Amino acid sequence: MIKALKGVTNLGQWVSWNPITGQMDVRQGGTWIIEDDLLVEYRSQNYKDLNFLDAGGRLLTPGLIDPHTHPAFASTREIEFELRSQGKSYQEIAASGGGIRNSVRQLREITELDLSALIRNRLNQMLAHGTTTVECKSGYGLSTESELKSLRAIRSASLQSEIQTFSTFLGAHEVPDEYRQDRETYINLLINEMIPLVSELKLADFCDVFCEEGVFSAGETEKILESAKSNGLKLRFHADEFVSSGGAELAAKMGALSADHLMAITDKGIQALAASDTVATLLPGTTFFLGSKSWAPARKMIDAGVTVALATDFNPGSNMSLSMPFIMTLAVIYLKLTPLEALQAATVGAAKSLGIAETRGCLASGFQADLVVWDADNYRQLPYFYGINQVSTVIVQGKHII
Amino acid sequence: MIKALKGVTNLGQWVSWNPITGQMDVRQGGTWIIEDDLLVEYRSQNYKDLNFLDAGGRLLTPGLIDPHTHPAFASTREIEFELRSQGKSYQEIAASGGGIRNSVRQLREITELDLSALIRNRLNQMLAHGTTTVECKSGYGLSTESELKSLRAIRSASLQSEIQTFSTFLGAHEVPDEYRQDRETYINLLINEMIPLVSELKLADFCDVFCEEGVFSAGETEKILESAKSNGLKLRFHADEFVSSGGAELAAKMGALSADHLMAITDKGIQALAASDTVATLLPGTTFFLGSKSWAPARKMIDAGVTVALATDFNPGSNMSLSMPFIMTLAVIYLKLTPLEALQAATVGAAKSLGIAETRGCLASGFQADLVVWDADNYRQLPYFYGINQVSTVIVQGKHII
Repeated sequence: MIKALKGVTNLGQWVSWNPITGQMDVRQGGTWIIEDDLLVEYRSQNYKDLNFLDAGGRLLTPGLIDPHTHPAFASTREIEFELRSQGKSYQEIAASGGGIRNSVRQLREITELDLSALIRNRLNQMLAHGTTTVECKSGYGLSTESELKSLRAIRSASLQSEIQTFSTFLGAHEVPDEYRQDRETYINLLINEMIPLVSELKLADFCDVFCEEGVFSAGETEKILESAKSNGLKLRFHADEFVSSGGAELAAKMGALSADHLMAITDKGIQALAASDTVATLLPGTTFFLGSKSWAPARKMIDAGVTVALATDFNPGSNMSLSMPFIMTLAVIYLKLTPLEALQAATVGAAKSLGIAETRGCLASGFQADLVVWDADNYRQLPYFYGINQVSTVIVQGKHII
Repeated sequence: MIKALKGVTNLGQWVSWNPITGQMDVRQGGTWIIEDDLLVEYRSQNYKDLNFLDAGGRLLTPGLIDPHTHPAFASTREIEFELRSQGKSYQEIAASGGGIRNSVRQLREITELDLSALIRNRLNQMLAHGTTTVECKSGYGLSTESELKSLRAIRSASLQSEIQTFSTFLGAHEVPDEYRQDRETYINLLINEMIPLVSELKLADFCDVFCEEGVFSAGETEKILESAKSNGLKLRFHADEFVSSGGAELAAKMGALSADHLMAITDKGIQALAASDTVATLLPGTTFFLGSKSWAPARKMIDAGVTVALATDFNPGSNMSLSMPFIMTLAVIYLKLTPLEALQAATVGAAKSLGIAETRGCLASGFQADLVVWDADNYRQLPYFYGINQVSTVIVQGKHII
C-alpha cells in the first residue's frame, strides 16, 4: 500500500533532533503536517481525516538511516560463521580462501539481474525494520567489470524499492587474488580506470577504502582517495578497525565525511576527528558478530565532541544483520550510549555521516517526511525490547509504504 | 488461519534429533505425514493436495521450545536499561528499589484480566518467532494472592493462544519487602501456604527457586524444593548465576529436571550434572543484555556429557527478548556451540529440560506435529542471519497456525 499522506496525527511520544536548539527533543501528542514529500509544521491538535495516518498514540521518530552496508553479495557465508564457533578467527578464514575473497569468486559469477533481485530483497527487509535511507557499497567484484556490475545492480534494486539509497564505490575492499603479487598494478587500475569510470557513469556518490594493516596502508588509501576526490566522489572509509593505522587522522586531514569502525582508534585520532567535520560511524554489530571484545570507544569520542553515527555494516562475513534497532541495543549495552544518544546516532548522526543532515534525519519543518511509527510507548523501548521488529508504519517522502 | 494438516510436503532441508540413533539428522526433501496432532511417518515423495502444506523447498525444524521465561509482569523496565548504560549495575538498581521489587509493586496492582492480556500478547509474539512450547514462571507477586493471580493469568492467556505452555511457581524469586527482616516467615509461607495451594489448584507443573547469594541459600532452596516435591511439583531452579553456591550439585542431588543459568558453575557442579539426568538450561541472553562477560561454560559441559538446553529468560529486567533464534545466535558466537548443537539445545535439549522429550522436540514418528518452516535454505542460517524473523510457517499439534 503506497499512499500520499497529509500528516501523521494522534501521536504518542515523538523524538527528534531539533536543528534550532541543537538538542534531542522528546515531546508528546499532536500532529506533524506533511506537504508532498516534506514535513511542513507541527500542530498540537489531532485530525480526523483519512489522508492522515493515525499513530494511535504510538511513538514516532525520523526514519532510521544506515550509513554503512555491503548488500551487493551473491551468497551468504554461514559456513564461516560455523567455523568461527569452532575457534577459527576471521583472519584465519580469510587466509584460507574464505572471507571477502570467497564473496569475490561468487560475485563475479552471478548475473547483474540476479544480483539486483537479491539486493532489492535486502533493501526491502531494511525498510521493514525502519531504515528509510541506506548507504550501499560495492566491493566484492574487485575488477572493473564486476565493480560496475555491483553498482548498477545497487542502482536498479534501488529503483525497485521505496528505500532511498546512496552508493559507494569500494573497489579498494581488498587486493584480488590475481594482483596479490602486484598490488601496485591493482591500485593503478583503481585510480586510472575504475574511479574515472564510476565517476563518469555517475554510479556512486562516495569512494571508500579498507584502510587496515594487511589490506591498504594509510599511504595507499590517501593516494586512492585523492584520485576519488579529484573525480568528484565524496570520501568515507574503513579506518582503525583491527589495528590503529592513523585512519582517523587521515580521514580528518582529507575532509572525509566519515571514518568507519574505529575500534582501534587512538586518543590522537579522537582529537583529530573532534577538530574536524568528519563523523565517526560506529559498527558495533561487527564486534558482536565476530565475538570480539574490541568495542569502539564511543563514550570517549562523544565526550571529546566527535559526532557519532551508528550503522549495521550488513555483510555476509562479519555482520549478517540489517536491523538498525538491534544496533541501537548494542550501542546502549556495549558502547554505553544512552537510548537517546543511540537514536540520535541512528538518525541525525547517520545523516551527517552521509552529508544529508540538511534534509533528513529530523522531525522539523522543511525536512523530508521520512518517518517511522513504532509499536512502542517511548524511545527507550526501541533498543530495550530487542530481537523483534517493533515497526508499525514506515513513511518515505510523505508516502505510506508499510 | 488455523487449519488441520495432513502433512508438510516439498521439504528442503529438514533437521532434527533422531531418537533412534541418538544424533542430529540433517536430511533433504520429501514429506512428513501428519495424523491429527502427531507425526506419522516420513516419505520421500511429494504430495499435491491442499491439505498438505507446501514448504516450497524451505528448511523445516521441530518447533522451538523455550524452557525458561518470566512473562507474567505488568510493566516494562526500560528506565533501568538506561541506568545500566550509565554505569549502574543490576545489583545496584535492585538495591535502590528497582529490579524484581519494582516489578512486584506493579504486579500486585494490575488486574488478573489485564495481566492475562499482556501475557497472551507476549505468548503470541513467541509463537510468531518459532516457539511452539514455552515454560512460564510466576514470581513477581511474592504474596499468596498475587502469585496465584499470576499463575491463573498464565493459564487463561495460554487458553487464548495456540502456543503450548507449562507453568512454574516461583514464589521464591526474592524475599518481598514486607518480610525483609523476617525471611524465615516468608519461607514458611511458601512452604505451608503457597506451595500446597498451587498444587491443590493444579496451577503449576514446576517449582523454581532463585538459589543465589543474597537471595535464597542452597539450604533454603533445598527446604522449599523438598516441600514442592512432596506436593507433587517437579523441580527446576535458578542456580549458580552470579556466584557459585553449589546450585548445580543440589539440582543433581534432588533430581531436578533442570538447573538454569550456571554462569558461575564449578567443575564439581559440571561433574554432578554429568552424572545425573538434570539438564543445564543456559540463558546467554541474560549475559548479553546485562553487558556481562560471564558466559556459561557450555563447551565444558557438553564435553563432560551434560545435556544442554537453551532458553530466552524473557523478563523485563535482565533480558527483554523472546526470540529463541537470537538465543541460538548468542550460543554460537559466545557459548561456542555449533549451529547444529544450538538447534539441538533449542529443541530436544529444551524438551528434556521440561521432561517432555518423549513427545516433543523431534521430527519422528509418534512425536507431536509441532513444526516450523523457515525462510532459510539450511539450519546454519537460523543463528547466522539474526535480528530478523525468519519464520515462514508455524504448525502446532498438526494445525497450521501462522
